[in-house]
Amino acid sequence: MQTAHSTEEMKGLRRKCKGSVGFVPTMGYLHEGHLELVRLAKNENHIAVVSIFVNPTQFAPSEDFKAYPRDLDRDLALLESAGADIVFIPGDKDMYPAGYDTWVEVKGITQTLEGRSRPTHFQGVTTVCNKLFNIVQPNRAYFGQKDAQQALVIEKMVSDLNMNLEIVVAPTIREKDGLAMSSRNIYLTPEERRSAPVLHKALQLASDMYDKGERDAILIKNAMTRLITAVPAAKIDYISIADIETLREVNAIRGRVLISLAVKLGKPRLIDNVILG
Amino acid sequence: MQTAHSTEEMKGLRRKCKGSVGFVPTMGYLHEGHLELVRLAKNENHIAVVSIFVNPTQFAPSEDFKAYPRDLDRDLALLESAGADIVFIPGDKDMYPAGYDTWVEVKGITQTLEGRSRPTHFQGVTTVCNKLFNIVQPNRAYFGQKDAQQALVIEKMVSDLNMNLEIVVAPTIREKDGLAMSSRNIYLTPEERRSAPVLHKALQLASDMYDKGERDAILIKNAMTRLITAVPAAKIDYISIADIETLREVNAIRGRVLISLAVKLGKPRLIDNVILG
Repeated sequence: MQTAHSTEEMKGLRRKCKGSVGFVPTMGYLHEGHLELVRLAKNENHIAVVSIFVNPTQFAPSEDFKAYPRDLDRDLALLESAGADIVFIPGDKDMYPAGYDTWVEVKGITQTLEGRSRPTHFQGVTTVCNKLFNIVQPNRAYFGQKDAQQALVIEKMVSDLNMNLEIVVAPTIREKDGLAMSSRNIYLTPEERRSAPVLHKALQLASDMYDKGERDAILIKNAMTRLITAVPAAKIDYISIADIETLREVNAIRGRVLISLAVKLGKPRLIDNVILG
Repeated sequence: MQTAHSTEEMKGLRRKCKGSVGFVPTMGYLHEGHLELVRLAKNENHIAVVSIFVNPTQFAPSEDFKAYPRDLDRDLALLESAGADIVFIPGDKDMYPAGYDTWVEVKGITQTLEGRSRPTHFQGVTTVCNKLFNIVQPNRAYFGQKDAQQALVIEKMVSDLNMNLEIVVAPTIREKDGLAMSSRNIYLTPEERRSAPVLHKALQLASDMYDKGERDAILIKNAMTRLITAVPAAKIDYISIADIETLREVNAIRGRVLISLAVKLGKPRLIDNVILG
């Protein structure tokens, strides 16, 4: 496994790659969800490249950029065992030098859900992914379904800008009790951690109602709300049932929908989702 | 010479290119300035690709998108004689399909000069060039110095987004009387055409003053203004002496500066520039 600590070094390693390149962009502090993406990238390509970069531009000033968990040594050991060939670990000033001034923005589908709660978030995500794709030049890039809106936004950017790669979205990896894996789960107190599977339970409830024929989005959202508000520490940010293409809320479920939610459990804010239809 | 009428067709031809690719993006209605870029692209690369696309997103609703001059047959004949290998002529709906929603924006240096007069212009330029670069995947792309701010904005985008190509800026090509070549020159009435070299004369005056040791930007701008306002039909949009990197106006000329101006001569609006220092 090789490491590149600058964009120039990464471009140099890329020029030497033979065959197809699969790429997993991460912010580090890796969990089984990331490692599954790395294994998939390695399985579907000759070379697996992973980036570790806690991207400052996707955090609002009020958010946890500085406190975001980091453990590079542990990450590198995990990546080696998962089969990564190249790990790209750029510095902030390499990615965003003084006078940096260019932004890639997907409008429309970024105005809702996570984008409503975090208005500058997706511009940071699309900008850094655009840069990373240009540096790594992958044939395929891998994202987790847990960040469903992020995956849709990246797919939209790649399609709209005619970028030369395929976006692969892999299933959410969960703890045994159903909690979606996330680097931010370490913020949970033991009590919050015990309550955290309620997000997944609410999504399962929605799936069950749908399977039994319920198509009224309001009724499903109400049932999810009741389940979650039974947890005293839980504060719902949003529960959404939206068209999978436009991310506009639907009243009646007809085509494919993204059911997603964001819930604060004490200080940490958790998200999860399921696609139905 | 081959032609591609869709992005897919262009990507297919690109995959078959061997050696380096030079690319000249144009809006058609070609003049000697474009053809010089094509010859340069062919001279410095194995393959020269030219695009002809009147990009709707860089025109404001009040501007001349529909009236912009077009003559594809003439353009193709000129390109063949200039040595172009591939001409890419995409349609509007291929480049901007229904639901298109992604924009590439350089901030800072787009807020002044042409960007102040045409607030949505550069976002259209950077977005379409980003797309064209992804489709054509050139090693080098060629722009004319006549659109000095455009060249700086494109260079900034390519650098900030780590895009994998070199931007080459070639000297402005002029008519015998000094008027910078532009597809929009055909809008000039015979009388306006006779007055049009005044832009170049004003820039020559600035260069002469600079050569004689003048470094006071206000004095130089005043002299340029007097020269131009002596033409009754001329209406100055801006005369600027700005730092070449930031495009911020300077009072005293110390380092390299861009002296640029935009002047309406009747209905047509002409631009020109010189770099000093």
